[in-house]
Parts: sequence; C-alpha cells; structure tokens
Amino acid sequence: MTQRLTGIAASPGIAIAKAFQLNHIQYTPASEKVADAHQEATRFRQAVEEARQELERIKTMTEERMGADKAEIFEAHLLLLEDPDLIDAVIENIENDEVNAEYALDQVSGGFIEVLSSMDNELLRERAADVRDVAGRIMSLLRGVSYAAISAIHEPCVLVAEDLTPSDTAQLNPDAVLGFVTVVGSRTSHSAIMARSLELPAIVGAGEAAAKIETGTMIIMDALEGTVIIDPTEEELETYQARKEAYDLRKKELRKLLDQPTVSADGHRVELAANIGSVEDLQKVFANGAEGIGLFRTEFLYMERNSLPSEEEQFQVYKHVLERMNGKPVVIRTLDIGGDKELSYMKLAAESNPFLGLRAVRLCLSKQDLFRTQLRALLRASSYGQLKIMFPMIAVGSELREAKRLLREEQEKLAQEGISVSAAIEVGIMIEVPAAALAADLLAKEVDFFSIGTNDLIQYTMAADRMNENVSYLYQPCHPSVLRLIRMVIEAANREGKWVGMCGEMAGDETAIPILLGMGLHEFSMSASSILPARALIKQLSRGEWVGYIGELLSMDSHEHIQQFVKQKIRGDLS
Amino acid sequence: MTQRLTGIAASPGIAIAKAFQLNHIQYTPASEKVADAHQEATRFRQAVEEARQELERIKTMTEERMGADKAEIFEAHLLLLEDPDLIDAVIENIENDEVNAEYALDQVSGGFIEVLSSMDNELLRERAADVRDVAGRIMSLLRGVSYAAISAIHEPCVLVAEDLTPSDTAQLNPDAVLGFVTVVGSRTSHSAIMARSLELPAIVGAGEAAAKIETGTMIIMDALEGTVIIDPTEEELETYQARKEAYDLRKKELRKLLDQPTVSADGHRVELAANIGSVEDLQKVFANGAEGIGLFRTEFLYMERNSLPSEEEQFQVYKHVLERMNGKPVVIRTLDIGGDKELSYMKLAAESNPFLGLRAVRLCLSKQDLFRTQLRALLRASSYGQLKIMFPMIAVGSELREAKRLLREEQEKLAQEGISVSAAIEVGIMIEVPAAALAADLLAKEVDFFSIGTNDLIQYTMAADRMNENVSYLYQPCHPSVLRLIRMVIEAANREGKWVGMCGEMAGDETAIPILLGMGLHEFSMSASSILPARALIKQLSRGEWVGYIGELLSMDSHEHIQQFVKQKIRGDLS
Repeated sequence: MTQRLTGIAASPGIAIAKAFQLNHIQYTPASEKVADAHQEATRFRQAVEEARQELERIKTMTEERMGADKAEIFEAHLLLLEDPDLIDAVIENIENDEVNAEYALDQVSGGFIEVLSSMDNELLRERAADVRDVAGRIMSLLRGVSYAAISAIHEPCVLVAEDLTPSDTAQLNPDAVLGFVTVVGSRTSHSAIMARSLELPAIVGAGEAAAKIETGTMIIMDALEGTVIIDPTEEELETYQARKEAYDLRKKELRKLLDQPTVSADGHRVELAANIGSVEDLQKVFANGAEGIGLFRTEFLYMERNSLPSEEEQFQVYKHVLERMNGKPVVIRTLDIGGDKELSYMKLAAESNPFLGLRAVRLCLSKQDLFRTQLRALLRASSYGQLKIMFPMIAVGSELREAKRLLREEQEKLAQEGISVSAAIEVGIMIEVPAAALAADLLAKEVDFFSIGTNDLIQYTMAADRMNENVSYLYQPCHPSVLRLIRMVIEAANREGKWVGMCGEMAGDETAIPILLGMGLHEFSMSASSILPARALIKQLSRGEWVGYIGELLSMDSHEHIQQFVKQKIRGDLS
Repeated sequence: MTQRLTGIAASPGIAIAKAFQLNHIQYTPASEKVADAHQEATRFRQAVEEARQELERIKTMTEERMGADKAEIFEAHLLLLEDPDLIDAVIENIENDEVNAEYALDQVSGGFIEVLSSMDNELLRERAADVRDVAGRIMSLLRGVSYAAISAIHEPCVLVAEDLTPSDTAQLNPDAVLGFVTVVGSRTSHSAIMARSLELPAIVGAGEAAAKIETGTMIIMDALEGTVIIDPTEEELETYQARKEAYDLRKKELRKLLDQPTVSADGHRVELAANIGSVEDLQKVFANGAEGIGLFRTEFLYMERNSLPSEEEQFQVYKHVLERMNGKPVVIRTLDIGGDKELSYMKLAAESNPFLGLRAVRLCLSKQDLFRTQLRALLRASSYGQLKIMFPMIAVGSELREAKRLLREEQEKLAQEGISVSAAIEVGIMIEVPAAALAADLLAKEVDFFSIGTNDLIQYTMAADRMNENVSYLYQPCHPSVLRLIRMVIEAANREGKWVGMCGEMAGDETAIPILLGMGLHEFSMSASSILPARALIKQLSRGEWVGYIGELLSMDSHEHIQQFVKQKIRGDLS
C-alpha cells in the first residue's frame, strides 16, 4: 500500500527507482578466550593493514571524483589506524586478557566513541563518527564480511540507510545510485553536504519508517519537497515522472546559461555574484557561473579554532581566493563577530540583546589590533586580484571614517616596508543598519560601493529578531518600508556614481529580483545555487517595464499586496 | 580647610548654610535581669502607646504638608505597633527571660530586620527600614531620649545624615532645613523621592566623608551638580550665592508660566504634556503645568503583584486619572510588557534578543484575553474624560488593524451590555519601529494620531541597545537619519490632518525642541519636571525661523554638527 514519508530536502532533485536498504547491522561480539594471544594480535594487525589499503583506494577514488577537499576525511581515517589510543590499546587488550580481536576492538572503540561523544567540543564529537566508521571497517575485515556493499551496487536504485558514513558516500556509484534517503541527519550533516557536491537528490531525517523500507520496493523521492512515496500508484508514478523530466530539462536549460552574461530582455546588464563562507565554496562559485564574489564572509578563518589566525594565514587564504577568481571581483567583508557568532577563545561580555550590541565593525574598532591584522592581510593580498574591502554594520559616518583611517595607516606602514598593494582596491560598506540606509546620500560620498545586507536590515527595520519564531511574521522583505529604504540606498549610490549590490537572501528571491532590477541594483550576490535560476529569470524580465512599476509598488500598503502584484506580473512576463 | 565631596544630585537646588549632623547613634543595650518582669512589660507597653501617639501626630502633619500619599508610610508604622511578631514577642521575651525591655526589643527587632533583609522580595526588604525606624522610636522613648531632634530644628541649616528615615523627612521643618546631604542612598531611595516632593535640594550617596561633617560647619550644597563644599572660601561663597540667586530667580520665572499656554515667539501654539507611570505622578502633572498626559504607561498596574489586574481594578485607575485631568487629553498606552520588562506571574519564553522579540502589542495580540480585558477597562473609563488609546510597537499595518478589530469587538459587546462608551475616543499608535516611521503615510490613514517613541526608535534605527554601554555612542537623537525619520512621520500625519506628538526623552531635550518645532510637531510629552523649562524655551523661539533651518539641518553629516548648529542658533535667539 502506498505510504508517504516527509524528511528534509537536503539536495534537490527527483529520483524514481527501487529502494536499496543499506543496514549497517549492529554486531556485538562475545568475549572468547584465545589460546595464542600473540597470533590473535597478528590477525588484528593484518586487518588493520587491509583497512589501510581499502582506505587508500577510497581516498584516491574520492579525490578523482569529488576533489581533494572531500577526500580529506579519509586522511583522518588513515591517521586513526595509527592512533595508539585505538590500535595499540586493542592489541594490549588482546594480549593481556587473552581475548578475541573482535571483542577487544569492540570494547576499546566503544569506550573511545563514548568519550568523544560526551565532549563539549563539537569537532571532537564529530570525530566519534570517524572512529565508528574505521572500527566498523576493521571489524568487517576481521569477520570476513564486506563492510557495506555500496561499492557493489550496479543496478539503478535509491539508497536507504540509517545515515551514510563518509566512506559510504565516497564509494557510491553515481551511475547506479540515483539518490538517497536517510533516517537521521540535518541539512548540514556530512551526508547532506556530500549529496549536494555530488548533485545527487537527497532527503535526510525521514524518520524510523524509512528504516523499514525493504530492498526492491519501488519508491519516489521528491527532494525538492522532501517527500518519499513508498509503493506509489501508477498515477503517482506518471505524475512524478513528468515532474522529474521537467526538473531535469530545466536544469539542463539552466546549465546553458553558465557562461552567459546576465542581461534583461531589454538589454540591461547586471552582475550575479556568489556569497561564500569558506575556500571550499569556490567550487560552487565556478559550478554555477557566478560573475564574482559579492560577499566573502571571513568568520570561518576565526571560528572552530583556539586562537586568532595570523596575518600570514589570512593573507594566504585571501590570496588563494583572489587568484582562483582570476581577475573577477571579490568583495571581502571584514570580521563580523558578535551578535549570534562567538569565538571560543575571545570571551566577550554577555549582552542582553547581542544583535543590538558590540558586533562586527563596532567590535573591530574596539579591538584595533585584531582589526589591523586583518586589514594588513587584505592589503597584502590585494595585488593578486580585484579586491573590494567591505565593512559590516556601519551605522554612522564616524565609524566609517575611523575604519578607513586604520586601513590607510596600515597601507602606509606596508608602503614603508616596501610591500606592494594594489592601487585599485575599492572600499565599501554593508548597508544593514536603518540609520545607514537613511543617510546613504551622505555615506555614498565616502565609499566606492554599497552592498545592502537585507537579513539584518529587515531585522532592524522591523525590530524583529530574524531567529525568533514568535516574531517571524515580521520578516517581510517586500514590505513597503523595506523597499523604500532599499530604493533610498540605490538612488543615493546612483547619484554619486557608485555601484550598489545586495548580499542578503533577498537578492536571490524570485519575487524581489524584478523589483530590485526596476530600482537599479547593479549587483545581486546570493547562494551559488540560486545564480542560474536568477539569470534565467532576469533574461525574461523587461527592466524598463519594472522601472515603471516601482512607484505603484512602493505605495501599496502591505507585503502581501506587493508580492501578489509581482507574482502576477511575472506570470505575465513568462507566459 | 575647604573640602569637596561628590554625590548624586537627587533633588535640584542650591543651599548655603551651617551643617546639622544628624547621627542616629547606634545604641546596643546590655541584658539586665529585672526584678518585676510584669512591671517591665508594662513600661514597654507604655512606650509603644507613646510611639503610637507620636506617629499619629507625624502622620497628620505629613498629610497636611505633603498629601495623603506620602503619609501612607506612617500607616504602615502604626500597623507595626500592633504586629504580634514584634510587640507580643518583645513582651514574651521580657516575661520569660526576666530581662529589661531595651534588650528584649533590640533582640526581637534585630532578628526581624535580619529576616526581612534577606528576603528575595524587594518590597519585603524595604520593610526592614520601617521596622528599624519603629524600633528606634520605641527605644528612644524607653530610654527617655528624643528620637531624632529633627522636628526641633529652627535655625537655617543643611541636614547631614547617614540616611533619612520616612519619619525624619516627615518631621523636617522646611523653613529651617534648606537641604540635605546623606552618606548612602540613590536617586530612587525614599529620602530622594521625599526631597523632590518637598522641593528641597538633596544630595544622596555622598559617602563616608559626609558622616564626618560637624554640626555648625559652613557648607555649600550644589544639588544641580551633586557637589558639597565643606568650609568654603569667601570667594566660593560669593560664587555660589550668585549661582543660587540666579537659580531661584529662574525657578520663580518658570513658575509664572505654570498656567500659560505654550506659544512660540511668533505665535505658533504647541501642547506640552507629561509622561506618567502611576497615579502618584498626577501631582507632578499639576505642579508643573502640563496641558495633558501624552503618555500614561500602564505597566505599573501589572507589575509588583502576583496576578493580572482585573478589568474593574484597571477601570477604576483609568477613570480616576481621566476625572482628575478634568477634560484635558489623556493618552493611555496599552500594555508594553516584554523587552526589558517582565511580569513575575507570567512566564514568557526566554529570548536571545528581547528588544527584538515578542513585546508590547505583539505580546498583546498573542495573548488576546489579557489584551481584551485592558481594552474593556479603557472603553468603560472613556466616558470620564478625554481618552486617547495608544498601541505601542506597531511595525506593520496588519498589527494595527488586528488591534483595532479587537477594540471594536469589545466596544460592540459593551454596547450590547448597555454600558456607555465615549463617542470621542481617539485611537493612535506609537511610532517607535523604523518600519512604521517609513510607512507613516500609509499608517496615517488608519489612526487618529501618532506619538513618536524616540527611545526605541533611535535604538532600532541605530541597531544599538540603549541599555548597552558598549554601543551607547550610537544613541544619537540628533543624527540626520533619526531626524529624517521623524520628519517623515510628522509630514505624513500633517498630510492626513492627524496630530502627531512625541513621548520619548527627546521631546524634552533643549537641543531637539527647536528642530521639532520647526518640523511641525504638535505635542511634546516629557517628564513633568521638564515642562516649564521647555515652555520658557519655546516662548523665545521663532517657529518660522526654525522651519527655515530644517532643510539645512537634515543635510548635515553628523549628530555633532547638528547639535552645534542648534546650540549656536539658540544662543542667538536667547541673547
């Protein structure tokens, strides 16, 4: 009988195929006395060596298929095979207690996993999954059973599992595995991230019912909606087959836009850039045809570590990104810590309202050493590409002037040290505080560009925490007040001949794009995956027509009316 | 030798006189065996009876001099004289242990004070001071010494004391006592409040050095600045004498404006109203010539209690205030809980950024029963005066429409119950969220008035918590962005023919007033004590001249430049 499950759509797409249930059967070995403990230890050492060879193979395969970044996890696994706390401890157990290798391995790895799982540090907690994966592999080798049959799958199927380990995903044959469904997991779990980089449809966190799907059962997985249909009807199969074809066709069409410029139907050109949060994200920038980087968040350099990153370390990262972008514009935002983002090694005073507190440029201006280090690294990297430095959370002109003064001072110091700095660096600010938007005409005289940060701008304009569900009804990007502020900013920049971009979620929102195009936004920076759909949309819009709608839109009295109007017009444009 | 102390200026004014050091000498009685415990108990009862008579006298005197509100404290003292935990316990102690009354009283009251002082409840902690005061009075009567010689002071002096008890302040002869200085205390301590209602200069919290000032020493107390000068030089005496005369003269001049309308030098009339937070504040409304109440905060009705106030309880308070205001406008703001204000009996979910959370009208719309009760109480009270209902924290039109719908529903229910409601109630909103200011033209069509809440409006516009010292540099009322928002609101109201007021601190700020006058603000609502200075200032300003400055002011690039400009022009106007 047909059954429906709902999970988290972790990687988009639709797959229709028979299920392949991948159960890592929980094996708990009994304790057995061995006659020759020395020989048993040797058996264990051999299994470890075989595991090492398997892992080397998987690592090479992953590097070829998914790039060096993704293969790094197996480097960690290989290191575990040399970890005395794991391997030597098992051997010691075997020899001292004269027990079988399976039992000793289960005891030692179990204790190891338990300790790691109880750690406060999230990175260490995640290491528990690696230990489980490596111990499982050795255990299979000891028992002579194959560790997960994934690499053996050659018939088209949808993989179903409790969760997928890094080695599972690495061994997937993407010609046969059309997608996967897991019982547990979130959008940011390892398997979800891997699925997105393999461009494989994935639904995670589908719940216990997914564990009961039997191998061979027909299933539809709609990873656009997050729905799994088990044993679908003929009618459902037809519907989803059609939907899948439409999706695949659209994807193919979008790929044609990869290297095309972004031009409206009436010939107005804009720039579509990507927001990135780490060096790894560069891959998506290229895969989705971004014309530049509109927002490079530098927080990742400071987080998940125990001390501040050095100037050299930062310089290398900025240089790498600028070089990889090969002359395309790269907007790097200076550190935006505080608010909801903390550093474990820099204790900041607790604040009653951190979103209204000492964050971003405010914090940097109060900790000038930290700020100067970042500015120096940026200046040094500037000769390797087209760098644009952006200060976040500027509220008043005096903050901007102070930040620019520090930048100038560091530039002068570098000049004295004989270190070359690009003469073409642009300096701009994020417009995310209402005060800055309202005084954009004054600020525009002192910057090279603006980038509107709508996530925060909306939050402050509405006085509603965007993370607080109780007031989430007030997150209204198309509210007339928000649109009016945005228009003020765009007009102020245009009057001073400065370019203006947007790097909040709103820049990739299909309802907002026509309005922003009409208002005269120059650059739209968004998640890489939104770029091609945005380019396709803009190609069908007449900029002139939308310029004409702005006045009418801004005098509408609600978010809902404005959204309705845009949707109606878009349907007209696209039909 | 001349010495200077600094304390908290708790009640304004300057006094120059000899000090009168009022030390409640700490008396610790020894335990003595008494021959006739019964007779000792009788002696104690007599002292209690004498204390009762004294307190009755003080209470009557206080009622006559300072009103019934201020005399209430002595009602509490009289009740303590009947409290078995205090009085009966002392008698029991005397009889059981055959000890002297002084010792028994010291033991019992000491224990009582200790218990109260350790309570979590602030009200109970404050009761400790009352027990100390009453026990001290009985002790003095037992010992045949006079309990504080305050009532006996007839020579002009400045009183100096550790702290002043309620009975101390009540017995002050204001013809002789020209001001007082205390060692401990804050702006909100009892003695500070009493000083303001007696209009007696007071400096509190001047520190231990004040305890060493000897009776008869000449002192100057400048309770405008919070400075005490002990043994001043001739030159200092002259300087302060002149300063005191100027202050007294200005005060006298201001009093002449008490019943005058507020009219600019060129004949433009505005309204100066008072912000109040309780029924007790009405006294200051009358004493300072307010033309109405521009903001009645209703939170006090809900706070420092254990359950929600009933409809009837609220109705009585609203009715009382409307009746006392005798037809003058009274703007009552509906409940503004959440943010930094909590109710002990209504647990709200903890929020990461409460100022951006479920507060004020957002909370009321999510707890409609609570809101409807307040609306009914307001509607019922409306026939007793000129009521204007104001909703706080409106961000978008849908919130306003929902609040108005609930009001209309309650009005219809009351009509069905045959309860009369004024036909002239006005309904307005606070403009304190940037989104509301930016869409003021749209909102103006749906209200009778606006009142600009600048404390919050500035906080959100700057994205800076006004309680957070780290970002207090961003609290800039005269920043061009803030002024531009305010102008939008005033112009939007004017275009729709609606009146617009302001009820934040800014309305009473001498730098802001000329700008607001120029922009066309109709009503300025402020702390009662700011009203007369504001009226005096406006009488000297030419509204026409300030209308002319607005364009220039709004294109200045900083708070500082705008403040400078205004101060310069005002000096011109006043010279």
